[in-house]
Amino acid sequence: MTQPNPKIRHALSTTRAGNFAEWYQEVISEAQMAEESGVRGCMVIRPWGYGIWERIQTLMDRRIKEAGVENAYFPLFIPLSFFAKEADHVDGFAKEMAVVTHHRLIADGKGGLIPDPEAKLEEPLIVRPTSETVIGAAMSRWVQSWRDLPLMVNQWANVVRWEMRTRMFLRTSEFLWQEGHTAHADRDDAVAETLRALEMYREFAETVLAMPVIAGEKPENERFPGAVATYSIEAMMQDGKALQAGTSHYLGTGFAEAAGIRYQNREGQQELAHTTSWGVSTRMIGGVIMTHGDDDGLRVPPAIAPQQIVILPMLREDDGDAALLAYCEGLRKELAKLWALGEPVRVLLDKRPGKATQKRWAWVKKGVPLILEIGGRDAAGGQVSVLRRDRLWREDGKPDFRSVAQEAFVGAAVAELEAVQAALLAEATARRDAQIVRGIDSVEGLAAYFAGDEDAPASGGKYPGWVEMHWSRPTGAALDKVVETLKALKLTIRNTPLLAAVPEATCPFTGAAAVETIYVARAY
Amino acid sequence: MTQPNPKIRHALSTTRAGNFAEWYQEVISEAQMAEESGVRGCMVIRPWGYGIWERIQTLMDRRIKEAGVENAYFPLFIPLSFFAKEADHVDGFAKEMAVVTHHRLIADGKGGLIPDPEAKLEEPLIVRPTSETVIGAAMSRWVQSWRDLPLMVNQWANVVRWEMRTRMFLRTSEFLWQEGHTAHADRDDAVAETLRALEMYREFAETVLAMPVIAGEKPENERFPGAVATYSIEAMMQDGKALQAGTSHYLGTGFAEAAGIRYQNREGQQELAHTTSWGVSTRMIGGVIMTHGDDDGLRVPPAIAPQQIVILPMLREDDGDAALLAYCEGLRKELAKLWALGEPVRVLLDKRPGKATQKRWAWVKKGVPLILEIGGRDAAGGQVSVLRRDRLWREDGKPDFRSVAQEAFVGAAVAELEAVQAALLAEATARRDAQIVRGIDSVEGLAAYFAGDEDAPASGGKYPGWVEMHWSRPTGAALDKVVETLKALKLTIRNTPLLAAVPEATCPFTGAAAVETIYVARAY
Repeated sequence: MTQPNPKIRHALSTTRAGNFAEWYQEVISEAQMAEESGVRGCMVIRPWGYGIWERIQTLMDRRIKEAGVENAYFPLFIPLSFFAKEADHVDGFAKEMAVVTHHRLIADGKGGLIPDPEAKLEEPLIVRPTSETVIGAAMSRWVQSWRDLPLMVNQWANVVRWEMRTRMFLRTSEFLWQEGHTAHADRDDAVAETLRALEMYREFAETVLAMPVIAGEKPENERFPGAVATYSIEAMMQDGKALQAGTSHYLGTGFAEAAGIRYQNREGQQELAHTTSWGVSTRMIGGVIMTHGDDDGLRVPPAIAPQQIVILPMLREDDGDAALLAYCEGLRKELAKLWALGEPVRVLLDKRPGKATQKRWAWVKKGVPLILEIGGRDAAGGQVSVLRRDRLWREDGKPDFRSVAQEAFVGAAVAELEAVQAALLAEATARRDAQIVRGIDSVEGLAAYFAGDEDAPASGGKYPGWVEMHWSRPTGAALDKVVETLKALKLTIRNTPLLAAVPEATCPFTGAAAVETIYVARAY
Repeated sequence: MTQPNPKIRHALSTTRAGNFAEWYQEVISEAQMAEESGVRGCMVIRPWGYGIWERIQTLMDRRIKEAGVENAYFPLFIPLSFFAKEADHVDGFAKEMAVVTHHRLIADGKGGLIPDPEAKLEEPLIVRPTSETVIGAAMSRWVQSWRDLPLMVNQWANVVRWEMRTRMFLRTSEFLWQEGHTAHADRDDAVAETLRALEMYREFAETVLAMPVIAGEKPENERFPGAVATYSIEAMMQDGKALQAGTSHYLGTGFAEAAGIRYQNREGQQELAHTTSWGVSTRMIGGVIMTHGDDDGLRVPPAIAPQQIVILPMLREDDGDAALLAYCEGLRKELAKLWALGEPVRVLLDKRPGKATQKRWAWVKKGVPLILEIGGRDAAGGQVSVLRRDRLWREDGKPDFRSVAQEAFVGAAVAELEAVQAALLAEATARRDAQIVRGIDSVEGLAAYFAGDEDAPASGGKYPGWVEMHWSRPTGAALDKVVETLKALKLTIRNTPLLAAVPEATCPFTGAAAVETIYVARAY
């Protein structure tokens, strides 16, 4: 968010600096990514939003398969009894989950419908909040011998967690995700898999989403229940808050014990497997919006853009249109032959009726990386007029169109798409790095640094980003105290980056010697 | 099902001729395609079964996108009130659907869990049996002007219809499917789309699934409620029964009226859109099993085989294994460079520990098209030993391995995979055609033809296939009478093939002149 240029009239009515939360909603609405469905907390994902998810699925799935993990599908419904064990161990257990109690509707005789009292289920069914327990039960059937290990399965599915306060893509009652579950013969193999998945997510976020992340271990208090270690990738949004965009857990043998995943080792003895789980969700799309969106709408990294290049013929509804469309179709075919970022270029010739400038702004708001406008004169002269979404404006407040010979454009299109991908990553990385502060070495310093900014993004400012600190990695009651201190400041510890060197320092929370680097931030 | 060769010891314990229904379950179990989940009517789709579904999805999705249809995603839950309208029109409305009534579980104080009475939903939610009504509501928002038409969306999703009697892949309470929904400015455009989808399914069934089908119009009594015309593809299973494997509906303007899908035409007047819908599901996998399976398990057409070629090194757990594995890995790499049926060849080197013959039979039962067994001597001599799944046995009752030079195998592998695909289609088509009977021209003739075969497949026989007849296309009460007559014989009319010429004939049901060809059969 550099200094605004008063000559520019942006495409959105809300700016990031003006009100970040409203801006977020406007991007989603104007880019036609998603909308309310009428069912609280559930969204309709429109083609442009779903197209981005399909790109994420395709490219993530390729990585998952290359690692030797196989996809499978588990039931939507889970018997209530599967949750009873968990409830036994958890004080004041109350789970926000969708509960199915009947299997039929009948007319109520007053023109309405009611669940048929005759069709009450003996045991209620829960709509899966994750398939963890069901997959554990399946693994206990599938694993018999050391020969069956490692067993690595993944599921792409919808899951439901009843949410009171929802926000599209970031927190919805129903969301789409993948959950990987693996079982291994020993600790080393399971830990290696946990870190492989984490590294897969890190590489994916940076290479595909152009979203720089810190990959690291979550503090003990933020571990997934039952996990020995939880890792995450953390991205910085443009308002300075952190977004956890993926997690990977090493579960030790505790999960295997609960699910009964045992195997006969080479010596003929029964042993518990070591398990892992890891997942990412449609939340990643929220991350993409808040990383790359600007005051003109979304900007989609070419790797996940449903369309990378859109051709807009400036139709006049006269005799000249046929020649113009033929020219555009020829161009489309040339571009469709190219490969960029390891895949065929996705190019759309938008022939729909309507004014070219209106269509242009619709595509700008959707964030398509390259927009080509072509009029009759361009066609006659073998030219194309190119607008690059990541650098939309000239200093004089006009869209930065470049006129290029068609052949030159086709020859450079692959490099241009790859340049957009790289530029978005570079921009996001530079912004992220500039908003990580070092050198604060006391709780008072932290408090002062974050003071008075609670409503910052809603009132023309933004959060001050993240603070990189060093701490003594306290546990138990000492950790609880740190968490409470931070909570009072509306702050959280995001994670401990892998392999970070730690300088000689004193932990600002405990006064003991620091042993780890941590990031402290406000978070989604 | 040719005459059994007594020298052959088949891999399954049940034969098709012995008990078709049990054989079907054994194929699914032995091929590790799916298993019971513990929730009635819901199955776990294991990696081999899900891998086939992924292939179906990928190849169908490509066709859907090429037709200009965009994918989107609609919520799992539908408010009960959406169904009230429908109930108004339907006498004795009772729908088998999963009803969500609560959004939280709490401990019952006795070690169990119950739906929290405090968390009862004001309006129950229904787990989607289809997203039709929700998509209709979305279309009414998205369609404003003739410029917005055609609007074509598709969804890949899980849906739930509570079923009392379930059978894996054929009828399960939860299943996976795609549903396409399109809105058009006029009848012609909507009818053309309905028939395009039907032709897409026909071509897909034959080209991809190697499953010949009759594409045609369903009789009036089997129309989708509210449809003006319903079309289907019908496949013949090896027991002679028909399987409806896909449907496409032209819905006229009735659905648009109910959902409020109106547009302003070029003259500025409001008009109702004409809509269509079309879908296929995991049921297709049931069709593949019953079309191509044999007494040794599944046979998967190469186009949908998760692995097309499996390499089995005959490991001896000695010093020779390293050289053998290196040879196999070299072969795998060569094969992975090839393209067959328009895609990169999918080849797996199965290095898991275990006896090669045990592994061979596991792959035979899974139906992988080509199995290569390679021992130390093969490796030393540059040979491979090839088993083609669609012609497994020699006359002497031994598996029909061929020894071939590696280079020759690699050079011919693409042609061989394409030959397997073609052979499966040819075999299924010949069997289907041989089991379609013509010339029966009376109800008595029908009754005699199907007499006494109700339990045929369970007692060593099979159903006699389909009867091709000509009828007068009765409607209303006259049609009801035909349907009842057929029902008494446990028969149904499958469909009327498109474009079939009709000979001069008398309708066996009404005595009027025949105007259409129909297929009469027992059906799943």
